[in-house]
Amino acid sequence: MTFVEKLQAAWRRNRSFVCVGLDPDREKLPAALRHCRQPLLEFNRALIDATAPYVCCFKPQAAYYAGQDADDELAATIDYIHQAYPELPVILDVKRGDIGPTARMYAREAFERYAADAVTVNPYMGFDTLKPFLDYADRGVIVLCRTSNPHSGDLQNLVADGKPLYQHVAELARDRWNYNGNLGLVIGATYPEELGKLRTLCPELPFLVPGVGAQGGDARQVAALGRDRNGEGLMVNSSRGIIYASSGDDFAEAAARAARELRDQLNA
Amino acid sequence: MTFVEKLQAAWRRNRSFVCVGLDPDREKLPAALRHCRQPLLEFNRALIDATAPYVCCFKPQAAYYAGQDADDELAATIDYIHQAYPELPVILDVKRGDIGPTARMYAREAFERYAADAVTVNPYMGFDTLKPFLDYADRGVIVLCRTSNPHSGDLQNLVADGKPLYQHVAELARDRWNYNGNLGLVIGATYPEELGKLRTLCPELPFLVPGVGAQGGDARQVAALGRDRNGEGLMVNSSRGIIYASSGDDFAEAAARAARELRDQLNA
Repeated sequence: MTFVEKLQAAWRRNRSFVCVGLDPDREKLPAALRHCRQPLLEFNRALIDATAPYVCCFKPQAAYYAGQDADDELAATIDYIHQAYPELPVILDVKRGDIGPTARMYAREAFERYAADAVTVNPYMGFDTLKPFLDYADRGVIVLCRTSNPHSGDLQNLVADGKPLYQHVAELARDRWNYNGNLGLVIGATYPEELGKLRTLCPELPFLVPGVGAQGGDARQVAALGRDRNGEGLMVNSSRGIIYASSGDDFAEAAARAARELRDQLNA
Repeated sequence: MTFVEKLQAAWRRNRSFVCVGLDPDREKLPAALRHCRQPLLEFNRALIDATAPYVCCFKPQAAYYAGQDADDELAATIDYIHQAYPELPVILDVKRGDIGPTARMYAREAFERYAADAVTVNPYMGFDTLKPFLDYADRGVIVLCRTSNPHSGDLQNLVADGKPLYQHVAELARDRWNYNGNLGLVIGATYPEELGKLRTLCPELPFLVPGVGAQGGDARQVAALGRDRNGEGLMVNSSRGIIYASSGDDFAEAAARAARELRDQLNA
C-alpha cells in the first residue's frame, strides 16, 4: 500500500484525523522511565499503544533523537509501529532540503534507513531538491507551506505577483511537483483563514496541520476549514498536548484521553 | 575563539578561501578503503591530512552520514579535525529549520553532540526557527540565501516589493538576525551576478559559496565578485572536485593538488 492509501484507510478505520507527534525530551519523561536503558523508546511504545485506536498516523520528530544521540531509539520506535500497527503510517518529520545528490542521501535516510512512510521537506531550494523524495512513489512527501510558528510570515507572507510566498508553494506543489500523487502540505493551525484559503486552492492534497494544543490553534476551526471534499484530508498533529498530558506515571492513559478528545473535537 | 575569529585566522594563515566538502559516498571510495571498518572516516582522515595546508575550513555534509547509517563516523571525523587541526573551523552542513523547541534540539545536535564550529540553516520558517542557533554566540550560523542548484529560483527569484526573495533573506540576515555577529550566507557560485550584488548589499558577512567545480561555477569570478572589503569573506566549497579528484589509491595526493589549484585560482 502507498502512504496515501494507508492514510485513507486509517482515516476510515479509526475515524480520526489525529497525528501524535513523538517528540520525547529526556528531561520531561515521567520519573518511572528515566532510568530505563532506552527511555525515549519505552515512552514512545507506551504512548503508541495507548493512542493507536484514536489516531490516523504517528509523527516522530527527528530532531529529538538527533539532539539526544538516540538515533537507535528512533529506528526502534518506527520499527515498533510497523510491527505492532502496520495499518498506521509513520511520518518522519525532518524538514530536509538540499541539492540533488545530497537530497538522495536524505531520502535514503528517511525511507530506507528508517523505513518511514512519509517525510516532511522544505521547499526553499526548489524542485530539484524535492524530486529525490517525490520519486519514491509509494511514500508521502509533505512540503512546508504555511508553518505554525510566530515568525513564519518573515518570508512566507511576502507577496510576489499578487500572492504570498506560501501560496506560490501550494500552487507549485499542486500543479508541478505532485507528478506521483504522493504530495501533501504542512499548514499551521494557528493561521485558520489561510488554512481555509489553501483548502479551496488545493481541494485534493492531504494537509499536515501542526499547532493545535500547546501552540494555540483551535481544533474545531481546523476541521471546519481544512477538510477536503470527501470530508477527509487532514492529519492534525499534537505533540506536547498529548505526550505530556500528564507528567506522572499515568502519562499513557492521559495521552489516550487527550488523543480521544482531540479526535472527537475534530469530528464534532 | 569564536567561529568568525577562527575563520579569519585560517584565511590569513593558509591564505586560502577553500572549504573542502567531506561528502563521502561508500560506493565511490577508492578500492583500498572499501573493506575498512570505518571507510568514510579513513577516507576523510586522509583527505583532511592532505588538504589541511590549503584550506580555511572543512564542511562535512550530514546527509552522507545519516543516509549511510554512519553517525559515528561523522562524529569521529569532526573530532579528528578538532584534535589534529584545531585552528581550522568545521561547518556542519545540515540546512536545518524548525520551530523553536525543535530547533533547540537541532542546535544541540550540531553544536554539542557533534561540536561543530558552524552550521547551515534554512530561513523558510522565519526568525524564531533560526534564533536557537544564533544564540550560540561563539558558533557560526550560515543561512541559505541564493543556492547553487538548477531550480533554486523556483522560490528564491520570486519578486516581492521589487526585490527577489533571496535579497529579502540577505537584508533580514544583515539588519535583523545578526545580533551576535555570527551569521553568514550561502550563495551559489553558479549565479555570479547575484553574488556580486549580494556582496555590495552585505559588505561584511562571510559567504559560503558552493557550486565551483562539478556544478560549473567559476572560481576566478567568485573571487573577483565575492570578496569583502578586506579582500576576505569567502569560504568557497568544493566537494566532488576535490575528494574524487582521483578514484585511485592516490586520491589524497590528487585532492591536495585540486585544493591547492583552487586556492591559487581564488588568489589569482
